[in-house]
Order: sequence, then C-alpha cells, then structure tokens
Amino acid sequence: MLSKNKIKHIASLHQKKQRELHKEFIAEGTKLVVELLNSSFESTGIYATEEWFENNLLPANFTGEKHIASTSEMERITALSTPSPCLLTLKTRNTVFDTAIAKSELVLVLDDIKDPGNLGTIIRTADWFGFRYIVCSEQTVDLFNPKTIQSTMGSIARVNICYRTLETMFKELDRSVKIYGALLDGTNMLNTDFSDSGIIVIGNESRGISETIRPYITDKIFIPSFQADTLSGGAESLNASIANAIICYEFRRNKMISK
Amino acid sequence: MLSKNKIKHIASLHQKKQRELHKEFIAEGTKLVVELLNSSFESTGIYATEEWFENNLLPANFTGEKHIASTSEMERITALSTPSPCLLTLKTRNTVFDTAIAKSELVLVLDDIKDPGNLGTIIRTADWFGFRYIVCSEQTVDLFNPKTIQSTMGSIARVNICYRTLETMFKELDRSVKIYGALLDGTNMLNTDFSDSGIIVIGNESRGISETIRPYITDKIFIPSFQADTLSGGAESLNASIANAIICYEFRRNKMISK
Repeated sequence: MLSKNKIKHIASLHQKKQRELHKEFIAEGTKLVVELLNSSFESTGIYATEEWFENNLLPANFTGEKHIASTSEMERITALSTPSPCLLTLKTRNTVFDTAIAKSELVLVLDDIKDPGNLGTIIRTADWFGFRYIVCSEQTVDLFNPKTIQSTMGSIARVNICYRTLETMFKELDRSVKIYGALLDGTNMLNTDFSDSGIIVIGNESRGISETIRPYITDKIFIPSFQADTLSGGAESLNASIANAIICYEFRRNKMISK
Repeated sequence: MLSKNKIKHIASLHQKKQRELHKEFIAEGTKLVVELLNSSFESTGIYATEEWFENNLLPANFTGEKHIASTSEMERITALSTPSPCLLTLKTRNTVFDTAIAKSELVLVLDDIKDPGNLGTIIRTADWFGFRYIVCSEQTVDLFNPKTIQSTMGSIARVNICYRTLETMFKELDRSVKIYGALLDGTNMLNTDFSDSGIIVIGNESRGISETIRPYITDKIFIPSFQADTLSGGAESLNASIANAIICYEFRRNKMISK
C-alpha cells in the first residue's frame, strides 16, 4: 500500500516545478520502465501491482524504493489516461554540451519546440538516425515532462540532451561549423551538399526558426513537397517532428547507401 | 449567447458516437477554421467571440448558424486544453475508394493507427507529398476525432479518406498492384525499386502490420537506421507517423529531384 504522502509526491512530479525541486521524474509502461531500469539513469523507486512484480525482475543493482500498489493506487499516480501496471521514478540529470562536438559530428538544435510529444518523438528519431546530441533552447518544453518521456520510448537514455541559450551557444561555435536550418527561402534540400558535422536547427511548431536565430543559419534548406495535381494546393507546412525526421534521414541517407 | 442545449450539442461532438449520430464534427483555431470555411466541407455553424467576428470574414456562401459566444462559453464547447476564439461545426462525409485508383497512383493504407494525433499528422504529411487517397482499416481511430482534425492542419479537406475492411479490399485489388509494407524482414528501403502506383501499408503503433494483413504484402521494406557508434544501440523502432513520413518522402524523392 502507498502512503498518502507517497501518492502526493509521485503525482506532484507531473508538474515541472516539482520535478525541478525534487530532481526526479516518472516513466510508465512495462517496456519503457524495463528499459530505463537497465539504463544509466538512477532509479529512485518502483511502484507496481503485485502481478507486475511476479512477472518482471528488477536489476541486481537496483537500490531504489520498491512498493506494491493496487490498481486504484496506480490510477492516482499515473500521468497516462490509461494507467500502466508499473511506474518508475528516476533522478533527472543535466548534460553539458561542448560546442567543439559540432566540429566532428552532426548535432540537433531545437528552437522552442513546445509540444512534449513532438520533443519525445524528435529524441526517438534522432536516436534511430545516430544523432548523439540535442541542444534545446531554454523555451523548449521540459525534457522530463511525462508525455515527452513516454514518447521517447527509452531513447532518452541514449541521446545527450542539454538546454542552452541558443544565441550564446552560436557565438561560441567555431566559424567553420555549418548551421543548417529549414527556412522558406532556403535551397531545396535535394540540391544541398550535406556535411558530416555541424548543427541542424529545427524551428518551433508555429513560427519556425526565431527571428533572432535566423542570422546564424549558414545553410538555409527547405523540404520539397510533391503535388499530384496543380489543383490540390497541398499542405502549407509539415509537423515539426516530421520535418526533423525527413531532414535527419536525408543527412544520413548517403551514408546508409554506401554501407 | 449560446443556449444550454447548443453548448451540450457541441460538447457532445467530442464523442465518436455523437458525431456518427449527428454526422457533424468540430474544428478550432483561426487558421484551421478559416481554411475549412473555404473548403468543400459543408459548415453547419460558427461559434466565436465578438472580437473574432470583427477580425474575420465569413465566405459569401456560408449558410450555417452564426453565434457570438463569450470566452467562458467557448471554454465549455472546446476540445482543446487552451480554448480558441472560434469553433466551426461541419458535416462529416464518406469517401468511396475505387481500388482501380491504386493501378495509377500511390495510395496509403493505415492498418489500425490508434493515436488521433498520429492519424492527423499522417494526413498532413500525405498531403505535403501529394498522396490523394488514404484507406483506413475499420479499427483505425476516427478521422473526425477533434485531435485528428486539429493535427491535419486543414489537409483533411484535400486528402480523400475512407474506412474499409482491409482484407476485403486487398482481395478486390488487381493482381498487378504492388503492396509495400514496412516489416522487420524487409529489404532496406534504399535498395528497393519504387513504383509510381500501388499501395503503401503503414502498421499500428505497437505491433506494426497485422498478422492477417502480412500475407498480402508483395514488397517488404524496412527503413534503415544509422549508428554513430556500436555501443549506443539505438531506438528499436520509429513512431508510426515518422515511419510514414520517411516512406512517403523516399517514394517521392526521385521524382522531386528530376523536377
């Protein structure tokens, strides 16, 4: 059984302020929980039904709290619309990003991504395409938001993510580093030479790349669209996580062919 | 001012059962509302604040109801977490899909997409890449779910979408029609010859393409991943709307280059 205080504490981690205060976040769902239990994140507690504990083993080095909870208790601590049989609490962590990394590999930079699902999906896609670093603007939604964590599907344990004031970071960058950004007046991505290193900026869901960031973009690109007929008109834009995926794919595409 | 019954009616359209009963759905947000007001969908009513009506014109052929609503009334009818100043009600419609279409152009088939945001994003992406037809399995989430409508960003007015029992439809297809599907034992998509016509099947978020549908796939493909180092492991899979986007992009890529 969970104490009232314990329930209150876990439910409070749905809020950013409380996550920052306690330096803790939550993850739910067997697949994600098992993956994070075995990751480099430090687990502080596992809350699950008796049946779940019967069917799942904890790693030998698990040192957090362990609580059997009823289904109705799980309903009170969950951030999901359909509660999962298990919930894990973990310590948050900060990653430091050394701008020199952008001289040797491709780094994603997120300029105010606001939707937690988009952020999680971007992290998962980045992981699939071998991007090891993501730098988020200070106004980007919180990485440890439960919806972000759920949609990373565990990729949060493999991608290094940090928050920076983007302008300050761009000023620190070596001048040789290319900064790619999707903009309406860019070059068709299919006619662009891609580097193996540098920065790719993904803009906000509604307004794209900020006015203050645009001057730093050295290589403007756009994702071409395709019209089946001239009457249809077509979508005006793509969802931010979709644009990110297509750009990541195109940057890696040649390397994946030659492999 | 909105009557209690009116508020009750609009709020009821958040539910699938009521949408089916009344053959009506809702859309919110100025950009989407303006786009749908000027689309081929039949609008049945517009509900907005006085300020919104002062700043936006209705099309001359608008024949639906027009109601000025207070902000607190908008809060009671919205399906969004942050209410918009305008809400449009529209008539749902059914599209009939003639399987002969797959002989002359590429058609997307969705095998039980469950997340309304994913469905909406798939429709928006399909529109961007010039896919004019989407066939959804009967178990795919409702097209007229408010979250789906919001995430189509208006593309719902340009893409023809119908619901079919997929097995029945596959049996009706001409034998020459290729049926592409992303499967783990598929061929690397980069080594595949793509046709200009046929079917592309996108599987469910958790289990991919159903067991019952797999035998119909004539061309199994997979989206390659890229590992920055052998230690990282990488994501196990991609979000369904991301996989859809990369596949749609790759199918159109050659055509967009030669243009």
